[in-house]
This record gives sequence, structure tokens and C-alpha cells, in this order.
Amino acid sequence: MDNTALLTDHYEVTMVRAALRHPIAHRKCVFEVFARRLPDGRRYGVVAGTGRVIDELARFRFGDEEIAVLERFCDAETIAWLRDYRFSGDIDGYREGELYFPGSPILTVRASFAEGVLLETLILSILNHDSAIASAAARMVSAAGNRPIIEMGSRRTHERAAVSSSRAAYIAGVAATSNLEAARTYGVPSAGTAAHAFTLGFTGPDGPDERAAFAAQIEALGVGTTMLVDTYDITAGVRNAIDVAGPELGAVRIDSGDLGVLARQVRDQLDSLGATGTKIVVSGDLDEYAIASLRAEPVDIYGVGTSLVTGSGAPTAGMVYKLVEVDGTPVAKRASHKESRGGAKTAVRAARPSGTIVEEIIHRTGDALPDTHGLVTRDLQIPLVRSGEPADDLPNLSDARDHLGRGLVSLPWEGLGLSHGDPAVPTRYVLS
Amino acid sequence: MDNTALLTDHYEVTMVRAALRHPIAHRKCVFEVFARRLPDGRRYGVVAGTGRVIDELARFRFGDEEIAVLERFCDAETIAWLRDYRFSGDIDGYREGELYFPGSPILTVRASFAEGVLLETLILSILNHDSAIASAAARMVSAAGNRPIIEMGSRRTHERAAVSSSRAAYIAGVAATSNLEAARTYGVPSAGTAAHAFTLGFTGPDGPDERAAFAAQIEALGVGTTMLVDTYDITAGVRNAIDVAGPELGAVRIDSGDLGVLARQVRDQLDSLGATGTKIVVSGDLDEYAIASLRAEPVDIYGVGTSLVTGSGAPTAGMVYKLVEVDGTPVAKRASHKESRGGAKTAVRAARPSGTIVEEIIHRTGDALPDTHGLVTRDLQIPLVRSGEPADDLPNLSDARDHLGRGLVSLPWEGLGLSHGDPAVPTRYVLS
Repeated sequence: MDNTALLTDHYEVTMVRAALRHPIAHRKCVFEVFARRLPDGRRYGVVAGTGRVIDELARFRFGDEEIAVLERFCDAETIAWLRDYRFSGDIDGYREGELYFPGSPILTVRASFAEGVLLETLILSILNHDSAIASAAARMVSAAGNRPIIEMGSRRTHERAAVSSSRAAYIAGVAATSNLEAARTYGVPSAGTAAHAFTLGFTGPDGPDERAAFAAQIEALGVGTTMLVDTYDITAGVRNAIDVAGPELGAVRIDSGDLGVLARQVRDQLDSLGATGTKIVVSGDLDEYAIASLRAEPVDIYGVGTSLVTGSGAPTAGMVYKLVEVDGTPVAKRASHKESRGGAKTAVRAARPSGTIVEEIIHRTGDALPDTHGLVTRDLQIPLVRSGEPADDLPNLSDARDHLGRGLVSLPWEGLGLSHGDPAVPTRYVLS
Repeated sequence: MDNTALLTDHYEVTMVRAALRHPIAHRKCVFEVFARRLPDGRRYGVVAGTGRVIDELARFRFGDEEIAVLERFCDAETIAWLRDYRFSGDIDGYREGELYFPGSPILTVRASFAEGVLLETLILSILNHDSAIASAAARMVSAAGNRPIIEMGSRRTHERAAVSSSRAAYIAGVAATSNLEAARTYGVPSAGTAAHAFTLGFTGPDGPDERAAFAAQIEALGVGTTMLVDTYDITAGVRNAIDVAGPELGAVRIDSGDLGVLARQVRDQLDSLGATGTKIVVSGDLDEYAIASLRAEPVDIYGVGTSLVTGSGAPTAGMVYKLVEVDGTPVAKRASHKESRGGAKTAVRAARPSGTIVEEIIHRTGDALPDTHGLVTRDLQIPLVRSGEPADDLPNLSDARDHLGRGLVSLPWEGLGLSHGDPAVPTRYVLS
């Protein structure tokens, strides 16, 4: 299952087959990944997945098992070429955790036509998924301010997408994940609270026994644990929790009801019981708007699930992978509504000396940077792959997380708003 | 990566840890998977993923690598128990391709508390994803009538979710997928057309050369292929395609613009060129509504991407996994808004003699079936796992597809409508 060569569309392979008998197959091409627009009303996007693209490239190999599938519709020449396939080109792109806007050249693949076209589906799958999750998660992290978010949405998305979602959410600034595979694979801190099933499990012939459940939890996990207090009656649940754990209890979690009202009630009750340090975790269909609406409430930690792993209304980033240059000649589709700009592009972001960004400038690669009227510019593309191998000094997950943190504070103030609106900064094309 | 044991939430493991020192860990429990409601306005849901759940159970094992992650927060007793973990319980459930409604007991897991609680995340991830895709795809297949749909959305979703999406879409009646891994793993027929990049790749110093691209495609793939005619000018593209391929060309594809208007123009042009048998494939942001709106147009095949793999507005099915019985005693959470009904449940669907279904009846397992007033009933749950092993004679993918076909024609006529509304049939609870 580690092999990624068949995470590809049928037509990529037939296009290679049709190309191989012609010079086109081996022409030097440039492919670009970009999003024509941001999801409805969003002010910015967050790049994520680039690191996974680089990892999966190494597993993009056609072995005997993969070839057996392709032999159904490929000739011997194509099969022979695929057997030897190793991506040998260069890739540049926006680093993970970089903000992006409509048209941003997020990834630039330089390779022969045949080598490059074959990667379209895999690259887009990864970037479209991971960037959608990171973009939604970043809004939630902004809305939460200094309060940490635990990502706990694994059960609401595909089991493998869940792992990548945890990774993307971590880039976006989420504090921890419930997903253990993400902890193993990516080192994302894992965390958990308690389940209703656990409390319900202590039901005996005499009925429920919440205190027995809480006592068992404390016995195994210590008083620093988080108790789920809303299985039966919340007020009784909080009383039971503190009775059993004492006022040093780490946290209580509320997973249903009017979370704002309940958080205030529970805070008052905890304080009256002397548990002034016991934190309140809230969860239950939270999205960035619900998080923001709880700003004034005594909430310490948010648990976010469904809305995070489904991109909060935008489950895919809508990025496309387009051939933009063939042997140095810009090319572009001309059909209505889906036009794109030919030619390889370089992107910089221009900021005031204060650090606030003003615009993204996209110009033809190789051309001089246009006049930026005294603004400070920063190159957005970095080397990711050189001659098929990962470039040196690639940023890691922690770098990506830090980079996004800096990026978000560089947005004009309205750019962090949750309300629908235009991209936070305009994109200026300077294409000769 | 085949191991699935860590596709689990941190708290499932800590709950096991807290339970192990108490009788609860080994009590006979029943867990149920159900959806409290259908996505907004949907009339029915389609179960998918059950077969994958059974497959992944066999890979849910804690080996040395998995244990190394858990040792960070587990004691020796828990680790020892996890090392020996083999699910040894029974699972019954709705077959893949079965319709479901709010409250339908889609999966029933009978096991000790500890064995059962550990599977919550994996089971929900699979069922929530696959059922969301199948439910959306079934609406598209209905809207398309007798015209086939090719699923080509892999690039818009996580690379592994893409494979499962193809599988779920196939259950829903989609004819083929672009995804080669789905062809390998599940035997879903794969299909492809042509890429804009291919046509653009034939750009030379003298400019574009669409005819050269088409000729190369015919040379490799034969006249039965599908030509993408909207890279430059569609009318010129159709002319070039027939000039090069002759009137026996298999199909042309239109991927942009007003698809209804263009389909009519292209049909007229093809017919005037004698290519009366050349089919028209349309694609480009199609969902069930766009498909329905093209009913009167001369479209032969739909290519559907984004909306299918993202569940057309409902990317997760919202199913939950709840402990409903402990040692024969029904248990249920009592908190507001998230109540559930305790006790193991049996479900039947009642139909008129004509086959049209009238209601779903859910009663306590073991109780006699309530009066159905002369309606014909069908049991909805089948044995899926017995003592931890797959049950005999499990339905395969093709069975699931056929089963859904029969299910859809059993819906009252308004149940197949695309408009928002109530579930197609009511659910009647008869719980003593």
C-alpha cells in the first residue's frame, strides 16, 4: 500500500502512451499548481501537503504489481518506459505554512512532458486535501486566540485522510490531535479526554454509576485527566468529578448543549468547589464561528472535529495543475471560464516596512522584479526537489507552523476576519 | 502503512487503560452505529464501507512499532493487553448498498467493552466517508438516468480517500473511475479521456498544433478514443477531431463553458460531419443538479469530479458509534440534543406488495416484530463478523451495486427527488 504510482488517473497514463512516440514526450515542460480562486468568501489560503508530496515521490514507482494493472491498456513501449520511471526533474514551490491567494504559483514542476504529466493527480490530491484542512484550521486557530485547540475529527473523515488532516491542522497551529497514527508518523502531540461509553459502561443492575467511572479514570490516569461531565446531568457530573478527583482535577469536558451557558455555569460551580485551576474543555460541532462566539466565555480548550477535517465548508482547495511552458514557449488553454496564464512564473510578496503585506506580485520567471514602490519583497518559492531528489535544508513541520504564525500577523487586519470578503491582498500580474 | 491499529483516537486507548482494572473491561457490550439525521434535505442515505471495515479489522494489530507509540502514555498491563488484541466479537449490519434513514442501526458490534471501544474511530472513519460518497453518488446516478457517469474526482480529495471514493461511487452505480488504484484494489473499471496538457504539449515554435495532438492520440489509442475538443476553439476542435479520426471517432469531451448549449452545437456539428455515432462526454463542476439540468441535452456520458468525492455538500455521513447495552442492560446518554436510544435494536423495512417501501421499523432485538398491517418486511441486518472472523457468504461489490439498484426503485417516487425534503420513509421505533 505504500506504493503511490497508481494514485493516478487512467488518462495520465494514456497521455504518456500517446506522447511517447513523439518528441513532445521528452520536451522540457513547466507545470504549475495554483488555485483560480479561494473558497467562497475566504481571505487567504494556507499551503500544506508539500512535504508529503516530496515523500510520496520516492514511492512513485511502477513495479510488477502496478505494471500488471497497466498492461490492460498499455503497449510494451509504454510499459517499458513506466518500469524505468523515476522523476528526475526539479520542483520549486511555496513552503508549507505559506499563505496563498488566487493565482499564487504554489508548485512549479520542471520536467519532460511525460515525467511531469504523470504526477498531476498525486500532487493535486495531496495539496488540495491538506491545504483545504490547513486553511480551515488556521481560521479556527485565529478565532480561538490564545486558547489551544485539540483536533479530534478523525472519525468524520476517511481513515487515512484523518492522519493527513492532523498534520495539516498542526501546521495551522492546532495544539494536539486525537489521532495516534499522526503522532507516530509526524510527531504531532496526541491528546485525549474521556468517552461517554466509558461512563455508560459502569452501568450495573442498580443503574448508572458515574462516580465509579470517574474513580476508575482517576486511578488509571491521575488527577490531571479530563473528565467528561455531560453523560447524565452536568451539575451532578461536575460535583461527582470534584468529589472523586479533588480540586486538583485537570479539566472537565462539555460535549453537548449550549456551550456558552454551560461553560459559565460549570466555571462558577468549579470555583465554588475550590477547583479554580480545573480547566474547561468544550466540544460538539464547533467551527470557527462557534469558536469565536465563545470568546467571552470561560472556555480553556476547544475540541474540534467535523468542521476541521471537512475544511469547514470547503473540503477541497480547488487547485489545478497546468502545463504552462513547452521548450520555453508559454502555453495556455483558451476556453471560456477556465483561462490560465502561460509561462513559468515567479512570485514575491510585498510588505510595508511594518511587515504588513500589501500585494502579491507574479511576474515571468527570469524577468526583473517590477517596481514595488519602496515596499519590502520576499521570494515565495523555494527549491523542493532537485534532479528528482529532495532539496537540501527542507523546512520541517515545526518550521511550517512557525512560518504560518508569522504569515498571519503580516495580514492586513481585515484579512483575519471571519466574515466573507475578498482576498486579504490583491495579486498583481506583471507578465510581459 | 497497512497496519490500522493507530487509526484510533488517543482516548480509546486511555479508556481501555482505565477500564482494564475493572470488570467493565470484560463485560458483554453492544455498540451501535447510526446517523441521527440525514444531511440537510436528503431523502435517503446509502451504506458503504462495511466491506472495508471487515478488511481493516484483520490489520488492526498492535505490533512493536505501534506499541512504541502507546508506551508514552500506557502502563505495562495495558500494553500487554493491546499486544494480544484480536477482535473476537460479532458484528451485524446493513449490507453495502442498503438504503438507510435517521436512526437506522447500520452496524451492531457485540464484544467486551475494551474490545469494542477500541474500534470506534476506525469503523466511523470508514463508514462516514464511504457512505457520504455513495449517498451523493447515488443521487447523481439517479439524475443521470441511463447515461453513464465516469468518476474522475481523485485530484480533489486525499489520495487514499480517492481510492475509497471510487469504490463507494461504484456501489452507487457509477460506471467507471479514473483512479487506477481503485481498478487494482477493487476491480472498478477504469476509464480516461484526454488532457488539455496533451494538446498544449504539441505547441511548437509556430504555435499550437491541435491536429498533431489528435493524430498522435489516434495513433496510440485508436479511433475509439475520446478527444478533448475545448483547449482552443470548440468548433475548430470538433472539426480537427473528425478530420483526423474520421466519423468513427468514439467520443469528444467538453470540459468548460455552458455545457448544455455546447453539447447541442457539438451534436449538430458532429452529425453534419457524419459522425452520428460519436458520443459527447461533458465534465466541469457537475453535481446532481447540473446533471439533471442537462437531461434534455444530447449528452452521452458525464464526467464527475469534485462534487462526488466531497459528498456534494455533505462530506461526512455524521454517523456515531454508541454503547447501547451492557450485560443486557440498555444504556444511553441523557444530555440535551444528543440523546440516543439504549438497547440493541433490530431493523426491518416494510413494503407494499408492489415493492414500494412504507416505513422502517426499529424494535428491541429479541422482541417480536410489531404488527405491520399486512406489509411485507425484510430484515436489514446480516451477519458480517463472527467470533472476529468475516462471516460466510459476504456480499461483494457487485452485489452491493445490484442491491442499491433494487433499493432505489423501492423508494416512494418523491424519494428520488433532488429537492430538499424529509426522509423518503419514516422510521417507527417500537421499543418496549
